[in-house]
Amino acid sequence: MTVSLVGAGPGDPELITVRGLARVRACEVLVFDRLVAAELVAAAPGGALRIERDRLEQREVNGLLVAHGRRGRRVVRLKGGDPFLFGRGGEEALALARADVPFEVVPGVSSLASVPGSAAIPVTHRGVASAVTAFAAHDVEALDAAALARAPGTLVAFMGLAGLERLAERLVEHGLPAATPAAVVSAGTTPREQTVVAPLGAIAAAARHLPTPALVVIGEVVSLRDAPAPARASAA
Amino acid sequence: MTVSLVGAGPGDPELITVRGLARVRACEVLVFDRLVAAELVAAAPGGALRIERDRLEQREVNGLLVAHGRRGRRVVRLKGGDPFLFGRGGEEALALARADVPFEVVPGVSSLASVPGSAAIPVTHRGVASAVTAFAAHDVEALDAAALARAPGTLVAFMGLAGLERLAERLVEHGLPAATPAAVVSAGTTPREQTVVAPLGAIAAAARHLPTPALVVIGEVVSLRDAPAPARASAA
Repeated sequence: MTVSLVGAGPGDPELITVRGLARVRACEVLVFDRLVAAELVAAAPGGALRIERDRLEQREVNGLLVAHGRRGRRVVRLKGGDPFLFGRGGEEALALARADVPFEVVPGVSSLASVPGSAAIPVTHRGVASAVTAFAAHDVEALDAAALARAPGTLVAFMGLAGLERLAERLVEHGLPAATPAAVVSAGTTPREQTVVAPLGAIAAAARHLPTPALVVIGEVVSLRDAPAPARASAA
Repeated sequence: MTVSLVGAGPGDPELITVRGLARVRACEVLVFDRLVAAELVAAAPGGALRIERDRLEQREVNGLLVAHGRRGRRVVRLKGGDPFLFGRGGEEALALARADVPFEVVPGVSSLASVPGSAAIPVTHRGVASAVTAFAAHDVEALDAAALARAPGTLVAFMGLAGLERLAERLVEHGLPAATPAAVVSAGTTPREQTVVAPLGAIAAAARHLPTPALVVIGEVVSLRDAPAPARASAA
């Protein structure tokens, strides 16, 4: 395999998969997201070419993967979370497929359940939520707020912190009660993890000091956090 | 830490996390789901007590974790996928917390994105789907089919194969076009992986010979599979 699209997991470097770490350790070219743990970038061989993705356009990233892959190099594209859950892995996969460069996808632990879980919030829980809707919230006005407000179960917003006030407003306008429990988890699964809990109508104000990356969780499962917390989360 | 609730990932044993494998290798008691890869069960120390979960009631599982945890043993509860995405990890966590037994959660790669991904279907894709709703479909009549039919983006049904005919029927009754692309992926990420693709109105008949475990994916992202496939998926 020349190119591996690898999910690095939610932040904690030990949450990469066994295969993902093996690919990083054997790579010749590492193209990595800025938010990926420094320990994982350091796990690549000393002589590997390291390229930070965030300085490049998506088009340029695709071009790099194709160019190095065509030379038969062992290329790892290391992405935060999972490549196929708001990771744009599909776009890179299509570019490689169209260029006839052999590639594989090594999935990762998405923030979707792991970041709320680290804050002692299970995104699904029998009798409370048997569904979860994850959505990208960087463009709040483009969202189908009516459908989201009616979605069964838990809502999880990726990239939702910057527009959180407006997001909460739109969901309430479309019928989600302002009293619905909500949480923002910043830097989940890392030593810098912080969690703020408030009703939906007040969550934006309560969380405005939190740094990104942050995940927004909305739904009754947030209340389960009031139960005695697991040892790791209570230390956070 | 005495008890670790560990996600084993979607099937492929190399898709467990680095921390999860370390916990399995160091455990004294391993309580494992039947569907967890045999390689992972074998990775526990030779002298570890191995208990198959599927012969027990959930109440008995909770009791076992508490009892062995109280004796200070290193207990690993190894679950398919992720503990907090339809994994009942929340219930086990609550039982341990109530009994004052120290525990941690080690998240895993959920089937949610990894199983469709293995079949070359990205559950989110820019311009096609910026949201995904995952739901447990073992009780089709209990589902809010109206809300699911209107959910933005991709639908992913866990435990949805047995009731798939009725699930598709209910979604179509509530307005989801019968022509919506759908797929069933059986034993995803394992050497036994099989995928069937058909319009929603025909998917139950097309997939009726597939064995469980199987994941159902409904939405336009399924069409992206027609693009040239990654090397691993094309071998499946």
